[in-house]
Amino acid sequence: MFAQVIECIPNFSEGRDPEKLQRIIAPFYEDKEVKVLDFSQDADHNRAVVTVIGTYEGLKRTVPLAAGKARDEIDLRKHEGAHPRMGAMDVCPFVPIMNADMDICIRLASEVGEIIASDYKIPVFLYEKSASSPLRENLAVVRKGEFEGMKEKMLQPEWKPDFGPDQPHESAGATAVGARMPLIAYNINIGTPVLEIANQIARKVRHSGGGLRYIKAMGVALQERSIVQVSMNMTDYTGSSLYQIMEMVKAEARRFGVNVIGSEIVGLAPMAALIDAAADYLQLENFSLNQVIEARLLEPEE
Amino acid sequence: MFAQVIECIPNFSEGRDPEKLQRIIAPFYEDKEVKVLDFSQDADHNRAVVTVIGTYEGLKRTVPLAAGKARDEIDLRKHEGAHPRMGAMDVCPFVPIMNADMDICIRLASEVGEIIASDYKIPVFLYEKSASSPLRENLAVVRKGEFEGMKEKMLQPEWKPDFGPDQPHESAGATAVGARMPLIAYNINIGTPVLEIANQIARKVRHSGGGLRYIKAMGVALQERSIVQVSMNMTDYTGSSLYQIMEMVKAEARRFGVNVIGSEIVGLAPMAALIDAAADYLQLENFSLNQVIEARLLEPEE
Repeated sequence: MFAQVIECIPNFSEGRDPEKLQRIIAPFYEDKEVKVLDFSQDADHNRAVVTVIGTYEGLKRTVPLAAGKARDEIDLRKHEGAHPRMGAMDVCPFVPIMNADMDICIRLASEVGEIIASDYKIPVFLYEKSASSPLRENLAVVRKGEFEGMKEKMLQPEWKPDFGPDQPHESAGATAVGARMPLIAYNINIGTPVLEIANQIARKVRHSGGGLRYIKAMGVALQERSIVQVSMNMTDYTGSSLYQIMEMVKAEARRFGVNVIGSEIVGLAPMAALIDAAADYLQLENFSLNQVIEARLLEPEE
Repeated sequence: MFAQVIECIPNFSEGRDPEKLQRIIAPFYEDKEVKVLDFSQDADHNRAVVTVIGTYEGLKRTVPLAAGKARDEIDLRKHEGAHPRMGAMDVCPFVPIMNADMDICIRLASEVGEIIASDYKIPVFLYEKSASSPLRENLAVVRKGEFEGMKEKMLQPEWKPDFGPDQPHESAGATAVGARMPLIAYNINIGTPVLEIANQIARKVRHSGGGLRYIKAMGVALQERSIVQVSMNMTDYTGSSLYQIMEMVKAEARRFGVNVIGSEIVGLAPMAALIDAAADYLQLENFSLNQVIEARLLEPEE
């Protein structure tokens, strides 16, 4: 058991070659203070999401090494996929889980960003709770223009990176590093091949379109299944819940005469987010997390 | 943090003296691999229900010690109460919760039963999933005759105990030990004051009426709220799930033009039962308990 647990979820722009991904994340397996909890690759998104937990020092040692491997393995000039991206290690958030607070994660993000920039000549933007200006809090704003537009974007003084060169790495682009609260990647599949329907549902559900405050959403085509997906990031599940999202997406889908045919949680989610969804669906009265047997085991010892 | 979680719910024939109960369950507090989650005493039943969780080894060490304390503290010859009973530690089920399966609990029940019999000269019957014959699966059948009738009952060859002497302990009687699935007490509230509607829904939902295999149900009036309740015991949530129950009760309620207005889980429930309900409602594809961060913190170290 680690004395401290910080979660780290690096996203790499490699969704199709499992061996490449293993080479990229090898440093995490080689450190005793880091544990790989999960990784998944999505061919349509052409993206890998990796979740590790570790101590401050363990993550400080290994995350820059993985960023370096990603620089060597991934060439953004040849990369295409449904998911927006600007770098080989596209984004890397640090999340406080146990015996670590947001300030510690902000400090870790800054140290890791500095090492990535100096060791691998990759420009690093600090985002979310680590952002050096309000403009950089939102990852989508930081990443706008993507790899192809980054060179021109970085000519603007307000897009000078926090660390590293003033232009993107020629093959590895730029990387966003930051600290944030737990995030849930949640996708709802819609039984139609029409991408525009997923786009319209996404627009209504997300905060920027007038929808739920802590939801980012976009439409994605899952071509091999001939369906579409409302692909979402939940930035605070205690504010905008899984139940609210599902009910809102179902209601929007009905407007088009189409149905929700499934959903998926990509990577990890906190227990409370799922228990809340069960409690909402079941209309549970007076329910407490203390009634969950396993939750009692995680309580601090008396 | 335990690498393995088995739940154990010993019932003691002592419902009126809190100090006696504390002396009986003291061994659970003294073991690092066991944690007391809950205990309650009922004076009318003259019975205590204790819930502990622990590892295989922790429970194997402590449950026999508690059975020994109960033998010393409780004299069945002077015991009266509304609840049927045959022993000082009357019954003790072991329940798989995490990183433990039914086979492990069956083995643990058998080992614990053997220790109780040899260390304290108390006859032990294995019941439920541990039963050595179909006749012994049902606790009510094993206990029939209670303490007062046990001596004569045990003269019959089919009621020779699985472990220990062929007659009850003179003051501590006999004990039933076994393995079973977690029980969940789950009630669904219906927005009508008409008890007959809850009774009819209960009849359709429960196994005995042609409904779900692992559900017992009955109608109950909640007079102070002017509503009724379908009160249920779930005997295997992996077989008959919360989602199935809720959808079936909703469908039955519709036949009467009434609605589900809420539900409640009484006492404890395993995380998986609630996560399953969330997964069913959300139509989650390819979801695993390993995606729950807290579940990963509870898993054994590699």
